[in-house]
Amino acid sequence: MIINRASKLFQPIVALQKNQILINNESISKSTQLMLNNGIIKQSSPGIFHFLPVGLRVLDKLIKLIDTELRYVDAQKVMFPTLTHAKLWKASGRYQDVASELFKLKDRHDTEYLLSPTHEETSADLIASLGLVSFRKYPLKLYQITSKFRDEMKPRFGLMRARQFIMKDLYSFDIDVERSKKTYAQMCDCYDKIFAKLAIDWVKVLGSSGTMGGDLSHEYHLPSAIGEDKLVQCGDCNYSANLEYIHNIIKTEANITSCPNCSSSNIKITNGIEVGHTFLLGEKYSKALNSKYLAEDGKPKLLHMGSYGLGVSRIIAAAVEILSEETAIKWPTLLAPYRTVIIGPKIGSKEEAKLAVTPENVYQHLNVVNTLMDDVLYDDRSDMTIGKRLLEAKRTGYPFAIVLGSKATQNPPQFEVINLYNQDQHFLSLDQLVDFFSSSSNFDVCKLSSSAKV
Amino acid sequence: MIINRASKLFQPIVALQKNQILINNESISKSTQLMLNNGIIKQSSPGIFHFLPVGLRVLDKLIKLIDTELRYVDAQKVMFPTLTHAKLWKASGRYQDVASELFKLKDRHDTEYLLSPTHEETSADLIASLGLVSFRKYPLKLYQITSKFRDEMKPRFGLMRARQFIMKDLYSFDIDVERSKKTYAQMCDCYDKIFAKLAIDWVKVLGSSGTMGGDLSHEYHLPSAIGEDKLVQCGDCNYSANLEYIHNIIKTEANITSCPNCSSSNIKITNGIEVGHTFLLGEKYSKALNSKYLAEDGKPKLLHMGSYGLGVSRIIAAAVEILSEETAIKWPTLLAPYRTVIIGPKIGSKEEAKLAVTPENVYQHLNVVNTLMDDVLYDDRSDMTIGKRLLEAKRTGYPFAIVLGSKATQNPPQFEVINLYNQDQHFLSLDQLVDFFSSSSNFDVCKLSSSAKV
Repeated sequence: MIINRASKLFQPIVALQKNQILINNESISKSTQLMLNNGIIKQSSPGIFHFLPVGLRVLDKLIKLIDTELRYVDAQKVMFPTLTHAKLWKASGRYQDVASELFKLKDRHDTEYLLSPTHEETSADLIASLGLVSFRKYPLKLYQITSKFRDEMKPRFGLMRARQFIMKDLYSFDIDVERSKKTYAQMCDCYDKIFAKLAIDWVKVLGSSGTMGGDLSHEYHLPSAIGEDKLVQCGDCNYSANLEYIHNIIKTEANITSCPNCSSSNIKITNGIEVGHTFLLGEKYSKALNSKYLAEDGKPKLLHMGSYGLGVSRIIAAAVEILSEETAIKWPTLLAPYRTVIIGPKIGSKEEAKLAVTPENVYQHLNVVNTLMDDVLYDDRSDMTIGKRLLEAKRTGYPFAIVLGSKATQNPPQFEVINLYNQDQHFLSLDQLVDFFSSSSNFDVCKLSSSAKV
Repeated sequence: MIINRASKLFQPIVALQKNQILINNESISKSTQLMLNNGIIKQSSPGIFHFLPVGLRVLDKLIKLIDTELRYVDAQKVMFPTLTHAKLWKASGRYQDVASELFKLKDRHDTEYLLSPTHEETSADLIASLGLVSFRKYPLKLYQITSKFRDEMKPRFGLMRARQFIMKDLYSFDIDVERSKKTYAQMCDCYDKIFAKLAIDWVKVLGSSGTMGGDLSHEYHLPSAIGEDKLVQCGDCNYSANLEYIHNIIKTEANITSCPNCSSSNIKITNGIEVGHTFLLGEKYSKALNSKYLAEDGKPKLLHMGSYGLGVSRIIAAAVEILSEETAIKWPTLLAPYRTVIIGPKIGSKEEAKLAVTPENVYQHLNVVNTLMDDVLYDDRSDMTIGKRLLEAKRTGYPFAIVLGSKATQNPPQFEVINLYNQDQHFLSLDQLVDFFSSSSNFDVCKLSSSAKV
């Protein structure tokens, strides 16, 4: 068994002055500061970031969570290329429509490519290239979780509005509009489940289709003061929409004082960070790229597409923004880089001399439980005090610490379990530790948002 | 439990004419044809490919295998950005040196970027940006497994020489040349273990450092007639080197007739596909990017770097090229997209009517064994004959098939297990099936290359 040791972990933490106030200005949000200062990410160029080892663990956990939920709706994972031939985007008209946000380049033969921000054209072209496939092979849902690129005018808030970012993008293909709508409802359910698992408040609103096109579109937002979108929610009819969408519909830039659906004045307007977007695309891209299937009557017909995005790296930044304290990260529990950190006494201390059970023993004991495997970190930097290591654990956002303090020298030894998110403390025996960390209900205490719509 | 069903799998197989001969020409290799025809990958643009679901499973398995081995050498996974600021490559001099192979672009502010083919500059710059870190924090090994980009003059052989490809690149940082050499030896051991796990013959040779620079370099090759490199191996002193390297040393383009090391004429020259490259870089990049550490004497000193690449997508293509038959893929067993496929009787057949145990039962029975989890496919396309589904399984390269034929209607039922790589057959009971697939020794029969240096 390989022990995850803090001494080996590349996590360049920035030393903070005591009582140093974090700046929350136009381009540096709280989450960005927390992630930069705690060695989670590092900026490479404006809006372009490294994921350091701790950050990559969080990203991998979110990817696995999304993969798991997408399997339930028969979505199949693929990897489309980053480099997309410009002719595909010229065919759909988007090469011109969103020109300023595209990273464009030419290869050595002067052929034009772009770094894909999204893959409607690519996926439609892939399906078209297969020739006519029987209607029996549909519906089809293909997705990937990869780096995407957008030449933002003003990259800001770290991963929240980056120029290279991780997106989950899924493309659905159905044989008619009714089936396409069924897929749309299924995907929205799937998104609800993903956000429920993250145990964080979210809002689903009607959104504009914009240059994407299509007939129906919803956005998923995490409410936050730093969110760039205004969301209108009606307390009476449950109507909810992006303000921009309402402006597009009613053709005015005026303030909204009543619900556009039921006219009730019981509306609330909040700021949201857009982390997901669903589009019922109809035939826009299948027409442009000639994506057809062989219908039951033997004739070729256009496929009906849907597009379903999740801002994976943005979800991470937004969750940190919403959940964290000023100087300590709190993650959605399922995304914490390690769930538990084990901290032994400082080297040369009287506790160290009298320990009946070493921190490594505790680690091994915990790791017999399969579900805990690889989710425990042993902070073996025993030249540091317990307090200093606890402080780093809290800053990094590990939900639980197991401390081998003076009670760990008793017979039988007792271990202090601290919930670093709410400061709850327990003293447990070795066997109780395993029970505690095996029981999923003990992780409910980490749910920071009890109002999540599960 | 979600059952992996062939009917749901997006695997666009190209129907082949009977006795159709595959073309092995300058740009289409056997492996490319096999992977294209069997719905593993699909070309998007020249040298640019989609990984379809079956191909992505193979890629994910190889990535996990590499991740596992790299953990043993304390390597830490990160993700560097694709977009690299040109100034970093100008600092190292490579912006000019390899200009023709770089994909270059400008952002909306006219700032120059490139799509990184490798990340020596990026990683050196990251370390430099952390300020002076104590010598105690080294050695450090950072790696990623991500898409890389090279504007090849002649992309060919599918994934083997692509313009967008998946590479594992690792960068090591040591405080002096001796420790750097120790890391180098450790990484070479690690590579040996990775290739041994793939159970495929490989050759390690001295290589040229080229524009990469540095003092020592080795290449890992998979011997194959279509390999573009010539490898010289001495049967007496075990010297082995890339012919290009020998030409650089002895400054001649003449044919080699004797070992450059011991002068023996007992040499053999073979073709190889380069799938890995290790470089002892010294201070080239740390000097250019100012990557220093705080030495024990309190002074800043330059770090010694190493660079360790593995062509992940190229390994897949090369292995398929070497192991496969003309019309059927054989994978390194650990990389097969599914280890086992279950095939039930055709719908309406007399066997179907009499089955005591359904294919789903067999599937569930196998999946109780944790190690088999998610590595079994149920080919539920029961409108197809057993023979036709077996043929597809063989073409796709699943090592084992479990067939529910006439003996599956007996009491107790017997299931036919076919090793599709060597045509061995067994009849086993349900419990014997679990034993068979739980025992790793039964997978040794899949080792196609008995001469692998384990």
